Amino acid sequence: MTHAILLISCPDHRGITAAITQYVYDHNGNILHAEQHTDEKENVFFMRIEWSMEGFDLGQDEIEGNFRTVAEKFSMKWKLYFTDRLPRVAVFASKHLHCLYDMLYRYKSGQFRCEIPLIISNHPDAGSVADVFGINFSEIGITPAKKREQEKKQLQILEQENIDTIIFARYMQIVGDEFIDKYENNIVNIHHSFLPAFAGKEPYLQAYQKGVKIIGATSHYVTGELDTGPIIEQDTVRISHKDSVEDLVRKGEDLERVVLSRAVRWHLERKILSYNNKTIVFD
Amino acid sequence: MTHAILLISCPDHRGITAAITQYVYDHNGNILHAEQHTDEKENVFFMRIEWSMEGFDLGQDEIEGNFRTVAEKFSMKWKLYFTDRLPRVAVFASKHLHCLYDMLYRYKSGQFRCEIPLIISNHPDAGSVADVFGINFSEIGITPAKKREQEKKQLQILEQENIDTIIFARYMQIVGDEFIDKYENNIVNIHHSFLPAFAGKEPYLQAYQKGVKIIGATSHYVTGELDTGPIIEQDTVRISHKDSVEDLVRKGEDLERVVLSRAVRWHLERKILSYNNKTIVFD
Amino acid sequence: MTHAILLISCPDHRGITAAITQYVYDHNGNILHAEQHTDEKENVFFMRIEWSMEGFDLGQDEIEGNFRTVAEKFSMKWKLYFTDRLPRVAVFASKHLHCLYDMLYRYKSGQFRCEIPLIISNHPDAGSVADVFGINFSEIGITPAKKREQEKKQLQILEQENIDTIIFARYMQIVGDEFIDKYENNIVNIHHSFLPAFAGKEPYLQAYQKGVKIIGATSHYVTGELDTGPIIEQDTVRISHKDSVEDLVRKGEDLERVVLSRAVRWHLERKILSYNNKTIVFD
Amino acid sequence: MTHAILLISCPDHRGITAAITQYVYDHNGNILHAEQHTDEKENVFFMRIEWSMEGFDLGQDEIEGNFRTVAEKFSMKWKLYFTDRLPRVAVFASKHLHCLYDMLYRYKSGQFRCEIPLIISNHPDAGSVADVFGINFSEIGITPAKKREQEKKQLQILEQENIDTIIFARYMQIVGDEFIDKYENNIVNIHHSFLPAFAGKEPYLQAYQKGVKIIGATSHYVTGELDTGPIIEQDTVRISHKDSVEDLVRKGEDLERVVLSRAVRWHLERKILSYNNKTIVFD
Repeated sequence: MTHAILLISCPDHRGITAAITQYVYDHNGNILHAEQHTDEKENVFFMRIEWSMEGFDLGQDEIEGNFRTVAEKFSMKWKLYFTDRLPRVAVFASKHLHCLYDMLYRYKSGQFRCEIPLIISNHPDAGSVADVFGINFSEIGITPAKKREQEKKQLQILEQENIDTIIFARYMQIVGDEFIDKYENNIVNIHHSFLPAFAGKEPYLQAYQKGVKIIGATSHYVTGELDTGPIIEQDTVRISHKDSVEDLVRKGEDLERVVLSRAVRWHLERKILSYNNKTIVFD
Repeated sequence: MTHAILLISCPDHRGITAAITQYVYDHNGNILHAEQHTDEKENVFFMRIEWSMEGFDLGQDEIEGNFRTVAEKFSMKWKLYFTDRLPRVAVFASKHLHCLYDMLYRYKSGQFRCEIPLIISNHPDAGSVADVFGINFSEIGITPAKKREQEKKQLQILEQENIDTIIFARYMQIVGDEFIDKYENNIVNIHHSFLPAFAGKEPYLQAYQKGVKIIGATSHYVTGELDTGPIIEQDTVRISHKDSVEDLVRKGEDLERVVLSRAVRWHLERKILSYNNKTIVFD
Repeated sequence: MTHAILLISCPDHRGITAAITQYVYDHNGNILHAEQHTDEKENVFFMRIEWSMEGFDLGQDEIEGNFRTVAEKFSMKWKLYFTDRLPRVAVFASKHLHCLYDMLYRYKSGQFRCEIPLIISNHPDAGSVADVFGINFSEIGITPAKKREQEKKQLQILEQENIDTIIFARYMQIVGDEFIDKYENNIVNIHHSFLPAFAGKEPYLQAYQKGVKIIGATSHYVTGELDTGPIIEQDTVRISHKDSVEDLVRKGEDLERVVLSRAVRWHLERKILSYNNKTIVFD
Repeated sequence: MTHAILLISCPDHRGITAAITQYVYDHNGNILHAEQHTDEKENVFFMRIEWSMEGFDLGQDEIEGNFRTVAEKFSMKWKLYFTDRLPRVAVFASKHLHCLYDMLYRYKSGQFRCEIPLIISNHPDAGSVADVFGINFSEIGITPAKKREQEKKQLQILEQENIDTIIFARYMQIVGDEFIDKYENNIVNIHHSFLPAFAGKEPYLQAYQKGVKIIGATSHYVTGELDTGPIIEQDTVRISHKDSVEDLVRKGEDLERVVLSRAVRWHLERKILSYNNKTIVFD
């Protein structure tokens, strides 16, 4: 049975929750999940509400117009999703393929509610992984000179495939503004450090040289600036002086997989609101 | 400013959330927090809702009667609290005093919204800790023969002091039915293992002998059966073959303090619903 | 360059470390790693020492006889390994294939120093995973009636393939004494709970019903008794009342993979000594 | 019974371990712990060896001269400690007293093998904590103008009391070169972030604003540069969008206490070697 999911943010005000829940009830909807959060410093209200469309007295196309009255009364920003329209996802990878592999394994195991019709890489290596899982593969090499041109090509393919969500599974390229604008808050990246520590290149080497006792991984939305977008999820693991850089890589890769998978899952289930370069995750 | 906190459980039904939030709004209440959970297997709905009494058009004593109509419609079990009536807490301790110390330190630091007028112990040692923090101390020795009689004495003192909440800060005694009945879901215990593993005596020794690689601590509500009440919070820490039983004790005590403090805090803030020998923690 | 690895246990005694390190030095060996542990309660000494065979003045086949004098002086139990003889591993699986998949992915990625020529399962499903990774697959169905007979068949195949190490990657069968005797301390199992809690069947369901706030996974050597062999590694992850049994399974499977992989890696690198139904891991 | 503890670092070389362990054995010492580590990139060897002085055929004052032959052969840097000479520790604090409290509680509970004759603070508040634990308190206010002069006063007092180890229990002052030189690798600090993230002022506020999902604490040796000395220990705890800055402070303080206590304990037990602005902890 299809569910509707409504994500809302607006200035905090008396009566918002009542208005929204009453709206769903008046149209005969059964609320399955409702979570709210108020940022008391900024006086902003956030809500995620999910209800069953079984018996709902408005069609999917009617809600958008109908809900507007409520939305405008409270100056809401809002997005409406229906679970029968699966997100269409492209996975980008480079040379380190453990996250790509893991994403596709989870996808095939039914952990992700989405369609993944496409894998894009700037290297040929990911092609064989794509083959194993029977997914189309597109190699689009990136050089400094051809970068803009190749990004146009990427965007074309994404459009052809109706892609709305992108996973950077260790895709080690910075993408341009056009890309960011089109997929704002829809590109999920994994960075192999505990951000904001060790942004940029070779974070495991940086961590080794610094002598930290714990390493981490961070999944975040991609913005125009490197490794600084809204953080979705992080996790850490203990290391010691006995660990070489290679040990850090191995231990870290286990983190990367898990952290990215959590972030992707929350994103696909519409559990994330992005705000002030931070995220609210209604887990 | 005083807040009202309402804890609700009832059979799941269309319109519950709308009815409750509308109720608060109709009486001019400003909802500060609202969290709900549905146990889909058992078809039970749970909610915690907190609102400001500023401008609310019913007095504290009027709500109880007034809300009944809503409550009965949905066959709710419910409890209503006001934050200007602080819980009155007695801490019970025995010989291991690290948790008692920690509870009182946090209390004096303002981490707990409650009053602690009383410490009870079956040993004299806790008396000096009580002195440091300026809290009344009552030593009530327990022997198998005098157990019932002494528990009566304890209950009398608790009643005199209007105690509604009890913390067992490593109080190593099993209490009788009268005690449990009177303080159901209001006695928070800490057990020094990852329950259900290593219930009963000397859990650190048990853990050492079993050769586990991680130890834990568990805070739970006390029931008539030893170490099996609804679990509120748990945490774990890594150990190795290098750790002696004494090392386990030392590492474990750090866990005990933190785990017990989280459970106590949630309990005092009315964030816990107990159900089917499990807890829902609206953290 | 080949390394020698010596694992030793013996009654604790003055001069053991000096005798062993001097032995290696006298034969012109370069010690790469040396770790020792003394169980002070039991007065037992444990050591792992690894040295380079480059320039060592004894051949691999000569050391065994030559070292005996030192060993007997201290009543040592000892095992000697050389890194140019890779362990030959068979992976056993049933219907849940995530651990099998992960083992093989790590094997192909070079994380495990071993050869895996064989996968055995009591179900046909694992066959396609074996195919993906290009490894021989043998389906040997187990029914109560045919259990002994089929185990004989398994043992024959293992012998043909010179298997010395077995991984139970969620192989949900109890094996007989002949099996255990032959592969004592050489069968690494993963159990999907934080042992000793929730041994036996459906540990995730047990954990859900108990209402624990943290779940775990345990890797241990298989003994004749179910889920009670020496624990090699454990790890835990936080859950909440929001998690269904299915969520526990998903979160737990991420743990299982990592915990099993650590245990297998340590085993293959000869870092584990088993003693008194516990392990010493020289990580 | 007194133990000797020898900490060694030197260029890696065949025969070092044998030479050291043989030395102890030749003088009739019983080795209780021996741990070594080789930094393979830098080709440096590190060792910690602890033996019982019972029956040792050299007096405490004789070893230093006698061992020199071995030390010079391998160009060792080395330090020798005896457990009957307890480190003399001064704790420095400012206004946040939770770490001071915790240090003193652990000290009185017997967790630290040291003497703490002195507490120094730039604020009067710590005085009452010192009183509770019966330890001398010295208030030495710091202003930019009087900083050098006051540091001289601090150093005088430290000298009078024969202090060899300093704990900065949230002492929020940068100390001068004279201080650092005199107590190199003997000042243990706690910083309330996961370094190198959020160095400097108000790390909890920084973490809140950045929107990280995990916060940390770091204990390190103090050097001339702020928050960049060799890291001894770190730990982390999960937070969420629901946590205010005050929640971060509360959760973080629990970390700070535990992380600092581990670092202090290792330092007092002579388990730390500092090298290349990193530490080797023989835990």
